[in-house]
Amino acid sequence: MPEVTVTRRMHFNAAHRVHNPELSDEENERLFGKCNNPNWHGHNYMLDVSVTGQIDDRTGYVMDLAALKRVVQEAVIDKVDHRNFNLEVDFMRGVIPTAENIVVGCWRVLAPRVAPARLVRLVLWETPNNYVEYEGR
Amino acid sequence: MPEVTVTRRMHFNAAHRVHNPELSDEENERLFGKCNNPNWHGHNYMLDVSVTGQIDDRTGYVMDLAALKRVVQEAVIDKVDHRNFNLEVDFMRGVIPTAENIVVGCWRVLAPRVAPARLVRLVLWETPNNYVEYEGR
Amino acid sequence: MPEVTVTRRMHFNAAHRVHNPELSDEENERLFGKCNNPNWHGHNYMLDVSVTGQIDDRTGYVMDLAALKRVVQEAVIDKVDHRNFNLEVDFMRGVIPTAENIVVGCWRVLAPRVAPARLVRLVLWETPNNYVEYEGR
Amino acid sequence: MPEVTVTRRMHFNAAHRVHNPELSDEENERLFGKCNNPNWHGHNYMLDVSVTGQIDDRTGYVMDLAALKRVVQEAVIDKVDHRNFNLEVDFMRGVIPTAENIVVGCWRVLAPRVAPARLVRLVLWETPNNYVEYEGR
Amino acid sequence: MPEVTVTRRMHFNAAHRVHNPELSDEENERLFGKCNNPNWHGHNYMLDVSVTGQIDDRTGYVMDLAALKRVVQEAVIDKVDHRNFNLEVDFMRGVIPTAENIVVGCWRVLAPRVAPARLVRLVLWETPNNYVEYEGR
Amino acid sequence: MPEVTVTRRMHFNAAHRVHNPELSDEENERLFGKCNNPNWHGHNYMLDVSVTGQIDDRTGYVMDLAALKRVVQEAVIDKVDHRNFNLEVDFMRGVIPTAENIVVGCWRVLAPRVAPARLVRLVLWETPNNYVEYEGR
Repeated sequence: MPEVTVTRRMHFNAAHRVHNPELSDEENERLFGKCNNPNWHGHNYMLDVSVTGQIDDRTGYVMDLAALKRVVQEAVIDKVDHRNFNLEVDFMRGVIPTAENIVVGCWRVLAPRVAPARLVRLVLWETPNNYVEYEGR
Repeated sequence: MPEVTVTRRMHFNAAHRVHNPELSDEENERLFGKCNNPNWHGHNYMLDVSVTGQIDDRTGYVMDLAALKRVVQEAVIDKVDHRNFNLEVDFMRGVIPTAENIVVGCWRVLAPRVAPARLVRLVLWETPNNYVEYEGR
Repeated sequence: MPEVTVTRRMHFNAAHRVHNPELSDEENERLFGKCNNPNWHGHNYMLDVSVTGQIDDRTGYVMDLAALKRVVQEAVIDKVDHRNFNLEVDFMRGVIPTAENIVVGCWRVLAPRVAPARLVRLVLWETPNNYVEYEGR
Repeated sequence: MPEVTVTRRMHFNAAHRVHNPELSDEENERLFGKCNNPNWHGHNYMLDVSVTGQIDDRTGYVMDLAALKRVVQEAVIDKVDHRNFNLEVDFMRGVIPTAENIVVGCWRVLAPRVAPARLVRLVLWETPNNYVEYEGR
Repeated sequence: MPEVTVTRRMHFNAAHRVHNPELSDEENERLFGKCNNPNWHGHNYMLDVSVTGQIDDRTGYVMDLAALKRVVQEAVIDKVDHRNFNLEVDFMRGVIPTAENIVVGCWRVLAPRVAPARLVRLVLWETPNNYVEYEGR
Repeated sequence: MPEVTVTRRMHFNAAHRVHNPELSDEENERLFGKCNNPNWHGHNYMLDVSVTGQIDDRTGYVMDLAALKRVVQEAVIDKVDHRNFNLEVDFMRGVIPTAENIVVGCWRVLAPRVAPARLVRLVLWETPNNYVEYEGR
């Protein structure tokens, strides 16, 4: 049976500040520039969630995209949309909320929930000109 | 010689209905919801066809994109554009026309026609928020 | 007080057939070509709904976009999404479901429901390369 | 001489909270829902700045877009990019930072700076699915 | 009968150089900077052609978009696609090929050809971040 | 430590002509058609530069995207933007400036400059409907 990858694109917006609390304010300012603004800034994030599996003969689906949407809505979007990544998101505690750390955090909450398909790639767009990808390695 | 992947994006629109004729109407309705509407619905599909090969010294091309476009036009677009996937598309007979099955059907008609380049990936967008990928495995 | 126009973009997909039942099949075929396919085809439509009004001092809004979204969802999207424009949409009875007639039909159901703001423009995209606009005249 | 409208699209991201300090917390929560989150949220905003004028015979330009870009960069982008609309933007003092009020604020700082062309339209996208327009009336 | 505006989006790419032959090289360099490069540069242009008219009862169309596409293809695209605006385009002779002058040139060749609909707006995108509009005034 | 891929998207526009100087004019015309126009044509190119590495605990970054942007700006954009690929770009000497050869040329100048991250993929869009990818093999 052919293996196909299916992707659901989801949207959310949130505030964050790129800041390492273990460093001095000067060091944070030097490392992160305007992204370190103590009054926060924010983004419209776009998240592509990709799962792979064999096509089910009975449905023609690898995984019902409505089901995948529900999983991502509950495990990620409901926790981050219109929220502050530094202050309010449980799966981001203890890490700096860069796009890199956000995508890894999303992986950890999503990977256990898509069986029997398997999570193979997350792409997180932070702006129209930059995005990060994680494949679980 | 470097190996490069070149992609041609093509567009078509078509009607379909996600329906398994071997199941009861109730079961179809339960499995597929509004996508099972007996009066059909449709999409503007977008298909990215990617082939890989070495760059030809004489042309600087892996494969002339005008030639690739002609192949996709004849083998896929002319058969599906403004058509009904359940009723009119020869390479979809006997399978449910989900995006997953459509992308595998496209692979089967395209893979033999791009030599000496080789087909390495198809991406089929069904809506702006979901797409499927197939790499021939 | 300044007058601002606010727009909410909505998405749906549907099947249709460009066909005038008062003409012969030959005439329909001649006028509409592949868009006349009796087995239907479909599109991912995108509808931009624009309303104008003064900014409310208390809310900073012309009209709460969540309220505008609910209005469009109930009056348009719930009636057309995953449906067939020729067979199933009450506000399209008796007209050919071209983009022009669809946008006028949407106007008629939306204009009475956005007071005290006023509906000023609808833009309906049928494909990435064509769209129609209506301003109620 | 023909009159043409030229537009420069600019991008920025910022944090905000839709909140009216003259109302109770309960009333704010009721009116603005998740947009009222006290921990802020944010957006990638996109601003289209349009000026109209006659084409200058000597340059073929209505207005040099590099000059227009500099004006918008200094008067708007440098003041709002990676900032908090409620706390840090001088031209937003005393108003709720909805998209409607932001676009009017941008108009006030931009309109005096584009002569001899004239500012005719601002379009501000807050998300991929909603935008506001202001023409100075 | 309602009046609707219908738009067909067309694409082409071309080379140009922003250069006024009546000025010195120094003056051209000062006015136009890198856009004055004597070795040319180019763009993927996108042209939105909008015509207005009443909906025809018999077809549901303001103007058959296939016919509008043919008109734009013959009058504009065939003359500019993969061409040099300074050297090869008849309707651009004697003017500097800025976006402003190109859009006016397109208007002059298109306006007489869309009757009984009437040309109401051209939008020409030169890059993803700048575009010009002309309404024939 | 997780390995993440981060991508910065960059834009430039340039002129080129697909032409092999070792072949006759007739052969060039036959092979390349309108892309061989001796008066040049051009494109708005879009280049996605992707680097992979472990997330740095101290910054949360694989590589500071502002630093990656500077590298691409200096090594690629400053050399190609508003330029002619056949006449003016040092890293393209001796090859036909097809998208395939451009992406390989970009790789050669970028790969040595992103350590300790590593360059893993370049995607170059030539038009909205075609792009090439190179992974250094």
